Amino acid sequence: MDCIEEVNYALAQIKEKRPFVHHITNYVTVNDCANVVLAIGASPVMADEIKEVADMVSICNALVLNIGTCNERTLASMIEAGKMANIKNIPIILDPVGIGATPFRFHAVEQLMQEIRFSVIRGNMAEIKVIAGLNAKRTGVDSLEDESESAKVACTLAKKLGCIIAITGKIDSVSDGEKTYLLDNGHVNLTKVTGTGCMTSSLIGSFLGAGNKALYSAIGGILCMSIAGEVATTCKQFNEEAIGSFKVYLMDAIAAIKPQNITERVKISEY
Amino acid sequence: MDCIEEVNYALAQIKEKRPFVHHITNYVTVNDCANVVLAIGASPVMADEIKEVADMVSICNALVLNIGTCNERTLASMIEAGKMANIKNIPIILDPVGIGATPFRFHAVEQLMQEIRFSVIRGNMAEIKVIAGLNAKRTGVDSLEDESESAKVACTLAKKLGCIIAITGKIDSVSDGEKTYLLDNGHVNLTKVTGTGCMTSSLIGSFLGAGNKALYSAIGGILCMSIAGEVATTCKQFNEEAIGSFKVYLMDAIAAIKPQNITERVKISEY
Amino acid sequence: MDCIEEVNYALAQIKEKRPFVHHITNYVTVNDCANVVLAIGASPVMADEIKEVADMVSICNALVLNIGTCNERTLASMIEAGKMANIKNIPIILDPVGIGATPFRFHAVEQLMQEIRFSVIRGNMAEIKVIAGLNAKRTGVDSLEDESESAKVACTLAKKLGCIIAITGKIDSVSDGEKTYLLDNGHVNLTKVTGTGCMTSSLIGSFLGAGNKALYSAIGGILCMSIAGEVATTCKQFNEEAIGSFKVYLMDAIAAIKPQNITERVKISEY
Repeated sequence: MDCIEEVNYALAQIKEKRPFVHHITNYVTVNDCANVVLAIGASPVMADEIKEVADMVSICNALVLNIGTCNERTLASMIEAGKMANIKNIPIILDPVGIGATPFRFHAVEQLMQEIRFSVIRGNMAEIKVIAGLNAKRTGVDSLEDESESAKVACTLAKKLGCIIAITGKIDSVSDGEKTYLLDNGHVNLTKVTGTGCMTSSLIGSFLGAGNKALYSAIGGILCMSIAGEVATTCKQFNEEAIGSFKVYLMDAIAAIKPQNITERVKISEY
Repeated sequence: MDCIEEVNYALAQIKEKRPFVHHITNYVTVNDCANVVLAIGASPVMADEIKEVADMVSICNALVLNIGTCNERTLASMIEAGKMANIKNIPIILDPVGIGATPFRFHAVEQLMQEIRFSVIRGNMAEIKVIAGLNAKRTGVDSLEDESESAKVACTLAKKLGCIIAITGKIDSVSDGEKTYLLDNGHVNLTKVTGTGCMTSSLIGSFLGAGNKALYSAIGGILCMSIAGEVATTCKQFNEEAIGSFKVYLMDAIAAIKPQNITERVKISEY
Repeated sequence: MDCIEEVNYALAQIKEKRPFVHHITNYVTVNDCANVVLAIGASPVMADEIKEVADMVSICNALVLNIGTCNERTLASMIEAGKMANIKNIPIILDPVGIGATPFRFHAVEQLMQEIRFSVIRGNMAEIKVIAGLNAKRTGVDSLEDESESAKVACTLAKKLGCIIAITGKIDSVSDGEKTYLLDNGHVNLTKVTGTGCMTSSLIGSFLGAGNKALYSAIGGILCMSIAGEVATTCKQFNEEAIGSFKVYLMDAIAAIKPQNITERVKISEY
């Protein structure tokens, strides 16, 4: 199978297996993350009490750790859940939201990476650069990136960490350290709704939970979001300025996404 | 009055009295719960700091306790609020989300039930079976139930606990231990949006807060959700796959629900 | 420039500068607050861990403190963030949600006001009256106000505290203690969606973050919400009872708001 056949197979696996995806995530976008997991065909589980996270992750199929509104209590829960997931070979995705913004976030991610093995780390260019130890402005914002730099950072870091690195932005890069793919789907409105990054991580978690390979999980999660963003703009009532409606159509498009949408629209190349 | 006349009277009472419904609930679906309470004509109040919950519940008309993302801090607040509500005769509904998933949740509900008297407990079949001490798979998911078993479990547990038991699923059972009703409204899309269970509990809380009997509150809350789910599918733009839009139409339908919608659509039978 | 020219200039400043607006706010409406900040052209940041809030606010342009679901932990974080914002001359808006409802909330606001200088305080009449030490029913609800009383309370309190006071309701009053404006835009449906008050505070935070004067920031934030509420009712599919759809159209209207919408629709008078 080529890469897109793998992705489409992986998508079908989600619908068939309906995996449970345990999230310890932020309270800003959590509702959208839960709905996007349902939309793609998996089951969301949210729990962050340290006394239950090891039990909870043990009956789930994937773990999403997102530091968006992380605090000391939930950081401890993330470590607890992550360690148990590692013991049980349950795949984990890390979303290091705003890692460059504060020392607390930087050290939180440092600690998570010391204690836990991740299958995928997904962030924007600024966030992944901070993890790579590269110079990046410490803000929560997307920096202007160039695709070649993005691909190189992804590949180098993936090799170093032994996990999939996914850098999302205008063009996305996904690498396992050997192969690096550039993805060029999406729509500018995806940057005007909060949580499209978090939701992408939750979609990747859904792919992982269905037993798919981490590389195709990352590509699949990103493509479902970015292609759904394109499909959302094709609906009759679409109006670029109508951001509230766009968010609704985006969720509609994710729930309705089919292999043929991906096959027809995907713009992928190997770097 | 027959049962549906009681429910329609109870619905009118919400619009007239506009009760305050204090929630200690999860951060996943809390926004939808607040909006559904407004939509049905009541006023939502959310507060979980232990230093204020007794004061807050004292000026409210009903209390909703939902353990969806419960932690040790908010569990203590639930107990504090619940005890005060009992003292003041303010009705309480418990939503034991995922009780079977972890020992923490099981013991949380055990403690809540030891310390607090509830007017209504609403959950899916798996959750209510755990409370009933019956064998149930410890997951967050709906088990396939059969209506006769559901009615029996509801009736037996209601009698044992002396409160209304509401089991929601494809067919819902509501019992006070004497009478047991089966409700057969709804639409499959209600299972594809996160929080329809939580919202149902918040609707029941709204009915309770208006001074309605617990039995009709439970039936009323369930019918408002399940019939609104049906009405949402009648709107011109409805498309079964468009789950984002369905959630919007569902909220529209709840805000617009009228006694005649209930009278015309209800499928109720006594078991 | 007259007042509305100032507001329109201020709105353009948001689009140009895209300020970061740090929120420590409630988990009920936080997603809508983030989306409304994006819709108006600014960037939302949510963080409440005490170890990072001083760092986070230091790289932001405004701070929104909203006590909607405040607890002891987040109150301490609010104070920490507010002190740092004061040191760095970063403007702060306080939204004293439900201050009259419980002693905890009252003392939380008291402490916030002792330790932090605010640029704007926005609340409903009942909330602002509590801050003014006036007799107000201690509930979370809007009291029926009369516009002349509202203007007087706003003006007197603004003079006393040396900050902008904004009282929102059917008619809004905004005062800096010298000039007091009455604003008469809006639509009743704005009271039927949770979080329109919180979102208004976040809009004011967005205006403040772009370096605008506090008086025009408060007027601008309120007008963007209330005029968007009017615009939302002009869309073809508008139906007064369809509250779920209204919320979507409201977000659409905020994202699309133009100076000419404000100029054409504004109903403003100096008291």
